[in-house]
Amino acid sequence: MPYTYEKDGAAIYRQSFATIRAEADLARFDPDEEQIAVRMIHAAGLVGLEEHVRFSPGFAQKARAALEAGAPIFCDARMVSEGVTRPRLPAGNDVICTLQDPSVPDLAKQMGNTRSAAALELWRPRLEGALVAIGNAPTALFHLLNMLEDPDCPRPAAIIGCPVGFVGAMESKDALWADQPVPCCIVKGRLGGSAITVAAINAIASRAE
Amino acid sequence: MPYTYEKDGAAIYRQSFATIRAEADLARFDPDEEQIAVRMIHAAGLVGLEEHVRFSPGFAQKARAALEAGAPIFCDARMVSEGVTRPRLPAGNDVICTLQDPSVPDLAKQMGNTRSAAALELWRPRLEGALVAIGNAPTALFHLLNMLEDPDCPRPAAIIGCPVGFVGAMESKDALWADQPVPCCIVKGRLGGSAITVAAINAIASRAE
Repeated sequence: MPYTYEKDGAAIYRQSFATIRAEADLARFDPDEEQIAVRMIHAAGLVGLEEHVRFSPGFAQKARAALEAGAPIFCDARMVSEGVTRPRLPAGNDVICTLQDPSVPDLAKQMGNTRSAAALELWRPRLEGALVAIGNAPTALFHLLNMLEDPDCPRPAAIIGCPVGFVGAMESKDALWADQPVPCCIVKGRLGGSAITVAAINAIASRAE
Repeated sequence: MPYTYEKDGAAIYRQSFATIRAEADLARFDPDEEQIAVRMIHAAGLVGLEEHVRFSPGFAQKARAALEAGAPIFCDARMVSEGVTRPRLPAGNDVICTLQDPSVPDLAKQMGNTRSAAALELWRPRLEGALVAIGNAPTALFHLLNMLEDPDCPRPAAIIGCPVGFVGAMESKDALWADQPVPCCIVKGRLGGSAITVAAINAIASRAE
Protein backbone atom coordinates (compact mmCIF):
# COMPACT_ATOMS: atom_id res chain seq x y z
CA MET A 1 0.00 0.00 0.00
CA PRO A 2 1.50 3.38 -0.93
CA TYR A 3 2.60 5.66 1.89
CA THR A 4 0.51 8.75 2.52
CA TYR A 5 2.31 11.86 3.71
CA GLU A 6 2.14 15.65 3.63
CA LYS A 7 2.91 16.66 0.03
CA ASP A 8 2.26 20.41 0.25
CA GLY A 9 5.57 22.27 0.61
CA ALA A 10 3.95 25.32 2.23
CA ALA A 11 2.13 23.17 4.80
CA ILE A 12 5.37 21.32 5.59
CA TYR A 13 7.16 24.63 6.28
CA ARG A 14 4.27 25.92 8.43
CA GLN A 15 4.14 22.76 10.55
CA SER A 16 7.94 22.61 10.84
CA PHE A 17 8.31 26.19 12.01
CA ALA A 18 5.38 25.82 14.44
CA THR A 19 7.05 22.75 15.98
CA ILE A 20 10.35 24.60 16.32
CA ARG A 21 8.68 27.64 17.94
CA ALA A 22 6.84 25.35 20.37
CA GLU A 23 9.97 23.45 21.39
CA ALA A 24 12.93 25.85 21.14
CA ASP A 25 13.92 28.54 23.63
CA LEU A 26 13.93 31.65 21.45
CA ALA A 27 13.15 34.28 24.10
CA ARG A 28 16.50 36.05 23.99
CA PHE A 29 16.30 36.84 20.26
CA ASP A 30 14.72 39.94 18.72
CA PRO A 31 12.14 39.25 15.97
CA ASP A 32 14.68 39.39 13.10
CA GLU A 33 17.14 37.17 14.96
CA GLU A 34 14.35 34.78 15.87
CA GLN A 35 13.45 34.23 12.22
CA ILE A 36 17.07 33.43 11.41
CA ALA A 37 17.48 31.10 14.39
CA VAL A 38 14.27 29.21 13.51
CA ARG A 39 15.55 28.52 9.99
CA MET A 40 18.94 27.42 11.31
CA ILE A 41 17.24 24.95 13.68
CA HIS A 42 15.08 23.77 10.78
CA ALA A 43 18.08 23.07 8.55
CA ALA A 44 19.89 21.18 11.30
CA GLY A 45 16.82 19.24 12.46
CA LEU A 46 18.02 20.12 15.92
CA VAL A 47 16.11 21.92 18.64
CA GLY A 48 18.78 23.04 21.10
CA LEU A 49 20.97 24.56 18.38
CA GLU A 50 19.64 27.95 19.49
CA GLU A 51 21.72 27.76 22.69
CA HIS A 52 24.84 28.01 20.54
CA VAL A 53 23.68 30.77 18.20
CA ARG A 54 25.00 34.31 18.78
CA PHE A 55 24.12 37.50 16.91
CA SER A 56 26.08 40.69 17.42
CA PRO A 57 23.95 43.85 17.78
CA GLY A 58 22.57 45.01 14.46
CA PHE A 59 23.71 41.94 12.55
CA ALA A 60 20.34 41.02 11.07
CA GLN A 61 19.55 44.61 10.06
CA LYS A 62 23.01 45.23 8.54
CA ALA A 63 23.02 41.97 6.63
CA ARG A 64 19.49 42.50 5.28
CA ALA A 65 20.19 46.12 4.31
CA ALA A 66 23.26 44.97 2.40
CA LEU A 67 21.25 42.46 0.39
CA GLU A 68 18.49 44.99 -0.26
CA ALA A 69 21.16 47.36 -1.59
CA GLY A 70 22.29 44.66 -4.03
CA ALA A 71 25.41 43.40 -2.24
CA PRO A 72 26.90 40.10 -3.39
CA ILE A 73 27.04 37.07 -1.08
CA PHE A 74 30.48 35.44 -0.82
CA CYS A 75 30.49 31.76 0.24
CA ASP A 76 33.40 29.51 1.13
CA ALA A 77 31.89 26.37 -0.40
CA ARG A 78 29.69 25.36 -3.33
CA MET A 79 27.34 23.56 -0.93
CA VAL A 80 26.63 26.99 0.56
CA SER A 81 26.29 28.96 -2.68
CA GLU A 82 24.14 26.24 -4.27
CA GLY A 83 21.77 26.17 -1.31
CA VAL A 84 20.73 29.81 -1.47
CA THR A 85 17.14 30.08 -2.72
CA ARG A 86 17.52 32.57 -5.57
CA PRO A 87 13.88 33.81 -5.63
CA ARG A 88 14.24 34.91 -1.97
CA LEU A 89 17.06 37.35 -2.81
CA PRO A 90 15.78 40.95 -2.68
CA ALA A 91 17.94 42.32 -5.52
CA GLY A 92 18.90 39.35 -7.66
CA ASN A 93 22.13 39.40 -5.67
CA ASP A 94 25.19 37.57 -6.99
CA VAL A 95 26.05 34.47 -4.94
CA ILE A 96 29.73 33.80 -5.38
CA CYS A 97 32.00 30.89 -4.47
CA THR A 98 35.55 31.17 -5.77
CA LEU A 99 36.80 27.80 -4.51
CA GLN A 100 36.80 26.24 -8.00
CA ASP A 101 38.62 29.15 -9.63
CA PRO A 102 41.56 27.73 -11.60
CA SER A 103 44.01 30.07 -9.85
CA VAL A 104 43.18 28.76 -6.38
CA PRO A 105 45.33 25.59 -6.15
CA ASP A 106 48.55 27.48 -7.01
CA LEU A 107 47.59 30.36 -4.76
CA ALA A 108 47.03 27.93 -1.88
CA LYS A 109 50.48 26.37 -2.40
CA GLN A 110 52.07 29.80 -2.53
CA MET A 111 50.28 30.87 0.67
CA GLY A 112 50.90 27.55 2.44
CA ASN A 113 47.22 27.41 3.29
CA THR A 114 44.13 25.46 2.26
CA ARG A 115 42.30 26.12 -1.01
CA SER A 116 39.33 27.27 1.06
CA ALA A 117 41.45 30.04 2.59
CA ALA A 118 43.23 30.96 -0.64
CA ALA A 119 39.91 31.36 -2.45
CA LEU A 120 39.08 34.38 -0.24
CA GLU A 121 41.86 36.40 -1.83
CA LEU A 122 39.69 36.55 -4.95
CA TRP A 123 36.90 38.24 -2.98
CA ARG A 124 38.79 41.52 -2.44
CA PRO A 125 37.53 43.49 -5.48
CA ARG A 126 33.84 43.15 -4.39
CA LEU A 127 34.22 42.47 -0.65
CA GLU A 128 33.31 46.01 0.47
CA GLY A 129 29.73 45.94 1.80
CA ALA A 130 29.19 42.28 0.87
CA LEU A 131 27.56 39.56 2.97
CA VAL A 132 30.14 36.87 3.80
CA ALA A 133 29.03 33.33 4.64
CA ILE A 134 31.60 30.84 5.91
CA GLY A 135 29.82 27.51 6.33
CA ASN A 136 32.53 24.95 5.93
CA ALA A 137 36.22 25.72 6.50
CA PRO A 138 37.70 27.09 9.72
CA THR A 139 40.81 28.04 7.72
CA ALA A 140 38.64 30.34 5.58
CA LEU A 141 37.28 32.13 8.63
CA PHE A 142 40.74 32.48 10.21
CA HIS A 143 42.13 33.82 6.93
CA LEU A 144 39.27 36.31 6.64
CA LEU A 145 40.05 37.61 10.15
CA ASN A 146 43.70 37.96 9.21
CA MET A 147 42.79 39.79 5.98
CA LEU A 148 40.62 42.20 8.01
CA GLU A 149 43.51 43.02 10.35
CA ASP A 150 44.79 45.10 7.43
CA PRO A 151 42.90 48.42 7.61
CA ASP A 152 43.18 48.68 3.82
CA CYS A 153 41.24 45.45 3.30
CA PRO A 154 37.68 46.16 2.13
CA ARG A 155 35.06 45.57 4.88
CA PRO A 156 32.09 43.29 4.32
CA ALA A 157 28.76 44.50 5.74
CA ALA A 158 28.32 41.39 7.89
CA ILE A 159 29.75 37.92 8.42
CA ILE A 160 27.97 34.61 8.99
CA GLY A 161 30.66 32.51 10.67
CA CYS A 162 29.51 28.91 10.89
CA PRO A 163 32.37 26.55 9.97
CA VAL A 164 31.85 23.06 11.35
CA GLY A 165 34.04 20.41 12.87
CA PHE A 166 36.74 19.30 15.20
CA VAL A 167 39.86 21.29 14.31
CA GLY A 168 39.69 25.07 14.31
CA ALA A 169 35.93 25.48 13.99
CA MET A 170 35.33 26.44 17.62
CA GLU A 171 38.53 28.49 17.74
CA SER A 172 37.87 30.44 14.53
CA LYS A 173 34.33 31.30 15.63
CA ASP A 174 35.52 32.38 19.08
CA ALA A 175 38.09 34.60 17.34
CA LEU A 176 35.41 36.17 15.13
CA TRP A 177 33.21 36.76 18.17
CA ALA A 178 36.09 38.35 20.11
CA ASP A 179 37.21 40.55 17.18
CA GLN A 180 33.82 41.50 15.69
CA PRO A 181 35.44 43.37 12.79
CA VAL A 182 31.89 43.84 11.46
CA PRO A 183 28.47 42.62 12.71
CA CYS A 184 28.41 38.84 12.76
CA CYS A 185 26.50 35.70 13.57
CA ILE A 186 28.10 32.49 14.82
CA VAL A 187 27.21 29.02 16.06
CA LYS A 188 29.53 28.44 19.01
CA GLY A 189 31.46 25.18 19.27
CA ARG A 190 31.70 22.36 16.76
CA LEU A 191 28.23 22.64 15.23
CA GLY A 192 27.72 24.59 12.04
CA GLY A 193 28.06 23.68 8.39
CA SER A 194 26.64 24.50 5.00
CA ALA A 195 22.97 23.75 5.69
CA ILE A 196 22.84 25.97 8.79
CA THR A 197 24.71 28.72 6.96
CA VAL A 198 22.39 28.57 3.96
CA ALA A 199 19.41 28.75 6.31
CA ALA A 200 20.77 31.96 7.81
CA ILE A 201 21.28 33.50 4.36
CA ASN A 202 17.78 32.49 3.22
CA ALA A 203 16.25 34.00 6.37
CA ILE A 204 18.14 37.26 5.93
CA ALA A 205 17.19 37.41 2.26
CA SER A 206 13.46 37.38 2.95
CA ARG A 207 11.09 37.40 5.94
CA ALA A 208 8.74 35.08 4.04
CA GLU A 209 8.19 31.78 5.79
CA MET B 1 48.57 40.07 15.48
CA PRO B 2 47.54 37.55 12.85
CA TYR B 3 45.95 34.31 14.05
CA THR B 4 47.99 31.15 13.75
CA TYR B 5 46.13 27.93 13.00
CA GLU B 6 46.50 24.56 11.32
CA LYS B 7 46.69 25.26 7.58
CA ASP B 8 47.46 21.76 6.27
CA GLY B 9 44.29 20.11 4.99
CA ALA B 10 45.62 16.57 5.46
CA ALA B 11 46.65 17.29 9.05
CA ILE B 12 43.22 18.79 9.77
CA TYR B 13 41.52 15.61 8.52
CA ARG B 14 43.87 13.37 10.51
CA GLN B 15 43.33 15.27 13.74
CA SER B 16 39.58 15.50 13.18
CA PHE B 17 39.14 11.79 12.55
CA ALA B 18 41.39 10.91 15.50
CA THR B 19 39.24 13.08 17.78
CA ILE B 20 36.06 11.44 16.50
CA ARG B 21 37.47 7.93 16.97
CA ALA B 22 38.55 8.83 20.52
CA GLU B 23 35.17 10.26 21.50
CA ALA B 24 32.50 8.37 19.54
CA ASP B 25 31.09 4.94 20.28
CA LEU B 26 31.77 3.07 17.04
CA ALA B 27 32.05 -0.48 18.39
CA ARG B 28 28.91 -1.84 16.73
CA PHE B 29 30.04 -0.93 13.19
CA ASP B 30 32.10 -3.13 10.88
CA PRO B 31 35.20 -1.46 9.39
CA ASP B 32 33.43 -0.21 6.25
CA GLU B 33 30.49 1.11 8.24
CA GLU B 34 32.85 2.72 10.74
CA GLN B 35 34.56 4.76 8.00
CA ILE B 36 31.18 6.00 6.80
CA ALA B 37 29.96 6.83 10.31
CA VAL B 38 33.17 8.73 11.12
CA ARG B 39 32.73 10.96 8.06
CA MET B 40 29.07 11.55 8.89
CA ILE B 41 30.02 12.65 12.43
CA HIS B 42 32.73 14.86 10.94
CA ALA B 43 30.30 16.61 8.60
CA ALA B 44 27.80 17.21 11.38
CA GLY B 45 30.41 18.29 13.95
CA LEU B 46 28.46 16.07 16.30
CA VAL B 47 29.79 13.16 18.32
CA GLY B 48 26.67 11.23 19.33
CA LEU B 49 25.27 11.17 15.80
CA GLU B 50 26.49 7.56 15.60
CA GLU B 51 23.71 6.45 17.98
CA HIS B 52 21.20 7.34 15.27
CA VAL B 53 23.04 5.80 12.29
CA ARG B 54 21.79 2.45 10.95
CA PHE B 55 23.29 0.35 8.15
CA SER B 56 21.43 -2.63 6.74
CA PRO B 57 23.58 -5.74 6.16
CA GLY B 58 25.77 -5.41 3.09
CA PHE B 59 24.95 -1.75 2.52
CA ALA B 60 28.52 -0.48 2.44
CA GLN B 61 29.72 -3.29 0.17
CA LYS B 62 26.76 -3.00 -2.24
CA ALA B 63 27.03 0.76 -2.47
CA ARG B 64 30.79 0.66 -3.03
CA ALA B 65 30.55 -2.11 -5.63
CA ALA B 66 27.94 -0.08 -7.51
CA LEU B 67 30.24 2.94 -7.67
CA GLU B 68 33.20 0.80 -8.71
CA ALA B 69 31.06 -0.61 -11.53
CA GLY B 70 30.39 2.94 -12.73
CA ALA B 71 26.89 3.47 -11.37
CA PRO B 72 25.53 7.01 -11.26
CA ILE B 73 24.67 8.73 -7.99
CA PHE B 74 21.19 10.28 -7.85
CA CYS B 75 20.73 13.10 -5.34
CA ASP B 76 17.56 14.91 -4.27
CA ALA B 77 19.22 18.32 -3.87
CA ARG B 78 21.97 20.38 -5.45
CA MET B 79 23.59 20.83 -2.04
CA VAL B 80 24.12 17.05 -2.07
CA SER B 81 25.32 16.68 -5.65
CA GLU B 82 27.64 19.70 -5.35
CA GLY B 83 29.24 18.34 -2.18
CA VAL B 84 30.48 15.07 -3.67
CA THR B 85 34.27 15.19 -4.02
CA ARG B 86 34.71 14.22 -7.67
CA PRO B 87 38.33 12.94 -7.40
CA ARG B 88 37.18 10.37 -4.80
CA LEU B 89 34.78 8.69 -7.26
CA PRO B 90 36.19 5.34 -8.41
CA ALA B 91 34.84 5.45 -11.97
CA GLY B 92 34.25 9.12 -12.77
CA ASN B 93 30.64 8.39 -11.83
CA ASP B 94 27.91 10.77 -12.89
CA VAL B 95 26.41 12.70 -9.97
CA ILE B 96 22.90 13.71 -10.93
CA CYS B 97 20.32 16.04 -9.41
CA THR B 98 17.19 16.55 -11.51
CA LEU B 99 15.51 19.09 -9.23
CA GLN B 100 16.23 22.01 -11.58
CA ASP B 101 15.02 20.21 -14.70
CA PRO B 102 12.56 22.51 -16.49
CA SER B 103 9.91 19.79 -16.56
CA VAL B 104 9.81 19.41 -12.78
CA PRO B 105 7.49 22.28 -11.71
CA ASP B 106 4.69 21.13 -14.05
CA LEU B 107 5.24 17.51 -13.13
CA ALA B 108 4.96 18.41 -9.43
CA LYS B 109 1.66 20.23 -10.02
CA GLN B 110 0.32 17.30 -12.00
CA MET B 111 1.38 14.84 -9.26
CA GLY B 112 0.16 17.07 -6.41
CA ASN B 113 3.52 16.63 -4.74
CA THR B 114 6.66 18.65 -4.07
CA ARG B 115 9.25 19.39 -6.75
CA SER B 116 11.70 17.27 -4.75
CA ALA B 117 9.43 14.25 -5.13
CA ALA B 118 8.53 14.93 -8.76
CA ALA B 119 12.21 15.17 -9.73
CA LEU B 120 12.66 11.45 -8.93
CA GLU B 121 10.43 10.49 -11.84
CA LEU B 122 13.28 11.60 -14.11
CA TRP B 123 15.63 9.05 -12.49
CA ARG B 124 13.85 5.98 -13.90
CA PRO B 125 15.90 5.48 -17.08
CA ARG B 126 19.19 5.10 -15.12
CA LEU B 127 17.90 4.11 -11.66
CA GLU B 128 18.72 0.39 -12.03
CA GLY B 129 21.87 -0.33 -10.00
CA ALA B 130 22.41 3.33 -9.06
CA LEU B 131 23.35 4.76 -5.67
CA VAL B 132 20.51 6.95 -4.38
CA ALA B 133 21.19 9.70 -1.86
CA ILE B 134 18.26 11.54 -0.29
CA GLY B 135 19.69 14.24 1.95
CA ASN B 136 17.02 16.86 2.09
CA ALA B 137 13.36 16.13 1.38
CA PRO B 138 11.22 13.57 3.24
CA THR B 139 8.74 13.77 0.35
CA ALA B 140 11.46 12.52 -2.01
CA LEU B 141 12.16 9.50 0.19
CA PHE B 142 8.46 8.70 0.59
CA HIS B 143 7.95 9.01 -3.16
CA LEU B 144 10.92 6.72 -3.84
CA LEU B 145 9.43 4.09 -1.55
CA ASN B 146 6.12 4.37 -3.37
CA MET B 147 7.88 4.09 -6.76
CA LEU B 148 9.63 0.92 -5.55
CA GLU B 149 6.32 -0.67 -4.56
CA ASP B 150 5.87 -1.20 -8.30
CA PRO B 151 7.85 -4.35 -9.16
CA ASP B 152 8.50 -2.91 -12.63
CA CYS B 153 10.32 0.11 -11.21
CA PRO B 154 14.09 -0.22 -11.69
CA ARG B 155 15.94 -1.05 -8.43
CA PRO B 156 18.85 1.07 -7.21
CA ALA B 157 21.80 -0.81 -5.71
CA ALA B 158 21.56 1.02 -2.37
CA ILE B 159 19.84 3.99 -0.74
CA ILE B 160 21.26 6.61 1.61
CA GLY B 161 18.14 7.90 3.35
CA CYS B 162 19.00 11.00 5.38
CA PRO B 163 16.33 13.65 4.94
CA VAL B 164 16.29 16.16 7.79
CA GLY B 165 13.66 18.01 9.74
CA PHE B 166 10.42 18.14 11.62
CA VAL B 167 7.72 16.90 9.23
CA GLY B 168 8.09 13.50 7.62
CA ALA B 169 11.84 13.07 8.05
CA MET B 170 11.62 10.60 10.93
CA GLU B 171 8.58 8.88 9.39
CA SER B 172 10.11 8.47 5.91
CA LYS B 173 13.33 7.03 7.33
CA ASP B 174 11.40 4.64 9.58
CA ALA B 175 9.46 3.55 6.48
CA LEU B 176 12.67 2.94 4.51
CA TRP B 177 14.12 0.98 7.41
CA ALA B 178 10.96 -1.13 7.73
CA ASP B 179 10.68 -1.78 3.97
CA GLN B 180 14.36 -2.18 3.06
CA PRO B 181 13.60 -2.51 -0.66
CA VAL B 182 17.40 -2.54 -1.20
CA PRO B 183 20.34 -2.18 1.23
CA CYS B 184 20.18 1.18 2.94
CA CYS B 185 21.66 3.56 5.47
CA ILE B 186 19.64 5.97 7.56
CA VAL B 187 20.01 8.50 10.37
CA LYS B 188 17.04 7.88 12.64
CA GLY B 189 14.90 10.79 13.82
CA ARG B 190 15.12 14.44 12.83
CA LEU B 191 18.86 14.66 12.19
CA GLY B 192 20.22 14.26 8.68
CA GLY B 193 20.72 16.68 5.82
CA SER B 194 22.92 17.35 2.88
CA ALA B 195 26.27 17.52 4.65
CA ILE B 196 25.80 14.17 6.42
CA THR B 197 24.56 12.61 3.19
CA VAL B 198 27.51 13.91 1.19
CA ALA B 199 29.86 12.56 3.86
CA ALA B 200 28.37 9.10 3.45
CA ILE B 201 28.77 9.25 -0.34
CA ASN B 202 32.37 10.46 -0.06
CA ALA B 203 33.22 7.65 2.38
CA ILE B 204 31.65 5.03 0.13
CA ALA B 205 33.45 6.43 -2.90
CA SER B 206 36.92 5.96 -1.42
CA ARG B 207 38.49 4.52 1.72
CA ALA B 208 41.10 7.29 1.64
CA GLU B 209 41.02 9.48 4.74
